[in-house]
Amino acid sequence: MHKKLFIPGPTEVRKEVLKEMARPMIGHRTQEFTDLFAALKPKLQRLLYTQNDVLISSSSGSGLMEAAVRNCVGKKVLSCVCGAFSAKWADIAANCGKEIEKLEVAWGEAIKPEMIEEKLSQGGFDAIHLTHCETTTGVLSPLAEIAEVVKKYPDVLFLVDTVSSLGGIKVETDRLGIDICLASSQKALGLPPGLSVASVSLRAYERAKTITGRGYYFDLLELKKSYDKNQTPYTPSISLFYALNRQLDYILEKEGLEKRFARHKKMGRLTRKWAQEKGFELFPEKGFESDTITCLTNSRTIDLKRAKEEQKKKRYQFDAGYRELNAKLEKEGKPSTFRIAHLGDIKTSDLRKLLKELEALI
Amino acid sequence: MHKKLFIPGPTEVRKEVLKEMARPMIGHRTQEFTDLFAALKPKLQRLLYTQNDVLISSSSGSGLMEAAVRNCVGKKVLSCVCGAFSAKWADIAANCGKEIEKLEVAWGEAIKPEMIEEKLSQGGFDAIHLTHCETTTGVLSPLAEIAEVVKKYPDVLFLVDTVSSLGGIKVETDRLGIDICLASSQKALGLPPGLSVASVSLRAYERAKTITGRGYYFDLLELKKSYDKNQTPYTPSISLFYALNRQLDYILEKEGLEKRFARHKKMGRLTRKWAQEKGFELFPEKGFESDTITCLTNSRTIDLKRAKEEQKKKRYQFDAGYRELNAKLEKEGKPSTFRIAHLGDIKTSDLRKLLKELEALI
Repeated sequence: MHKKLFIPGPTEVRKEVLKEMARPMIGHRTQEFTDLFAALKPKLQRLLYTQNDVLISSSSGSGLMEAAVRNCVGKKVLSCVCGAFSAKWADIAANCGKEIEKLEVAWGEAIKPEMIEEKLSQGGFDAIHLTHCETTTGVLSPLAEIAEVVKKYPDVLFLVDTVSSLGGIKVETDRLGIDICLASSQKALGLPPGLSVASVSLRAYERAKTITGRGYYFDLLELKKSYDKNQTPYTPSISLFYALNRQLDYILEKEGLEKRFARHKKMGRLTRKWAQEKGFELFPEKGFESDTITCLTNSRTIDLKRAKEEQKKKRYQFDAGYRELNAKLEKEGKPSTFRIAHLGDIKTSDLRKLLKELEALI
Repeated sequence: MHKKLFIPGPTEVRKEVLKEMARPMIGHRTQEFTDLFAALKPKLQRLLYTQNDVLISSSSGSGLMEAAVRNCVGKKVLSCVCGAFSAKWADIAANCGKEIEKLEVAWGEAIKPEMIEEKLSQGGFDAIHLTHCETTTGVLSPLAEIAEVVKKYPDVLFLVDTVSSLGGIKVETDRLGIDICLASSQKALGLPPGLSVASVSLRAYERAKTITGRGYYFDLLELKKSYDKNQTPYTPSISLFYALNRQLDYILEKEGLEKRFARHKKMGRLTRKWAQEKGFELFPEKGFESDTITCLTNSRTIDLKRAKEEQKKKRYQFDAGYRELNAKLEKEGKPSTFRIAHLGDIKTSDLRKLLKELEALI
């Protein structure tokens, strides 16, 4: 029995996309594959609102998070931390031997432009990493306002994780001056996991040239060399390339980007309204709620354990809270959280049905 | 029109495996996924003849080649180079900032145990990397004999790339004392690309603990932490996990390992006999020909360009030579090579048909 997924990734994958996953294999050093690769390029550029290269990695988004810091941090990176995934990025940078300085706010709060201004104005940074939508807390960073600040520091590369926003919320990479904008296949793009994409600016490549120990798999210059030939340095996850191509056609041509963003907005609003009506507080700081994932404070004290058990019999799955976050909250004597993800190809009508089902658990 | 693949990866994927690729998505932090992961573990251990952990990476085999050297080389690695893929491994190690010393033979020749003995006896090494089957040249390294030598040096970790042999040729990881034995999904395992596996010995983990800058995605200790909980540190390529599970059942239960190895032996013999009859010399040094890939010297001077063109109209695809190798040979005024791959789920009868087709090109 398949459960419709309202968890923050993997998300539901449409049947025609799943079908692409089952295509017979082809060689990757063939015209057929380079044609497929070439077709993907402009579509990804449209999706990311960029003229930069959009590299494709046969890895999860975490892999490209590593690529971003491994290739772009020479001196010190400003690590913006507001939840588990942004904290993970800081850890990755540290594990790559990079010097990091954390700008940390309480989970549920958003990082503000002025906090970043204060840090960057002290000097010494050559990169900043920011998580657009923090999946653990459902907080959406004020990306446009932060971008204005980062632009004032021309030596600071702007690395942005849009894993749980790209394809659901507009991200104008070039207008915002984002040097690396990365995302995973299994979130708002509505694909199975295993692939990730990142736009890379010219100055990010230039920076990479000055950095040693970039390794191979996540070496941006290695990826670039192949990219220019519509190829990958290593055998790519061909099935997912097919699926990506099909899904980009759907997103760009069938649904259309603006409509897709509007649908996510609507689903975000709907979920927040429902929460309010049912007496659940929203976990994110007011005004910073993401339209892709809603994180709710369990102020009505649903028995989340029971809910999890109940779900086993149901045709849907929501998220009974991010474990690390709930453990933290429990320690502080605060109510736990749970999450409803409404991203990717989930329809508003599906979401309404889920909310109805959830009411039975209250 | 699908072409049956006789190229050295990706290989043909059976229909029931492709079907697994199209399964609806599930969450990876669920019982369903941990059950799937737990089921895979003993099957992979049987495939690799090991009691060690067999980690699964959502990357190509190149990723785990990077993992092996990044985590296991503290002092200096002996890089055994006999073709493009073994050379690539040495480059990866160097790009990870590791000190390498190459033991290099001409492409087409095999590295012998005494060459390794000579190098290792000089001291200073704490790891050696060896490519079991060199995909560019079709040379199979004398793994068992080399293993006997490496065993004499208890501080030297034995890292082996079995990308184009595992699942087609028996590799007894534990008996040979292999610390890291890695392979990709898209070769003799008969799966789509995007996944790779590596057995990891306890002493490899111990070594990793002493090494900094391991990063995240290919950090063996990070993978191990999750492995023990039947999990992955990052979102895994779920579709390929399903496919792997199905295919391991086929390999272990339906066909059986011994029969599978025997089939590959038969296909190797058949191809070499055909070559001899048709007047093609074998490119590998005599006695070191792999049973998974046959590399032939184009001594009959087939027009390989024409052959490549002809293939476009045919229902099969073989490999008209590894570009880098043929460029090298051309420079030396030697005849070029081409490859017939007979690995994975290719049947002997399929191979016979291909050889018949090739005769038309001579």
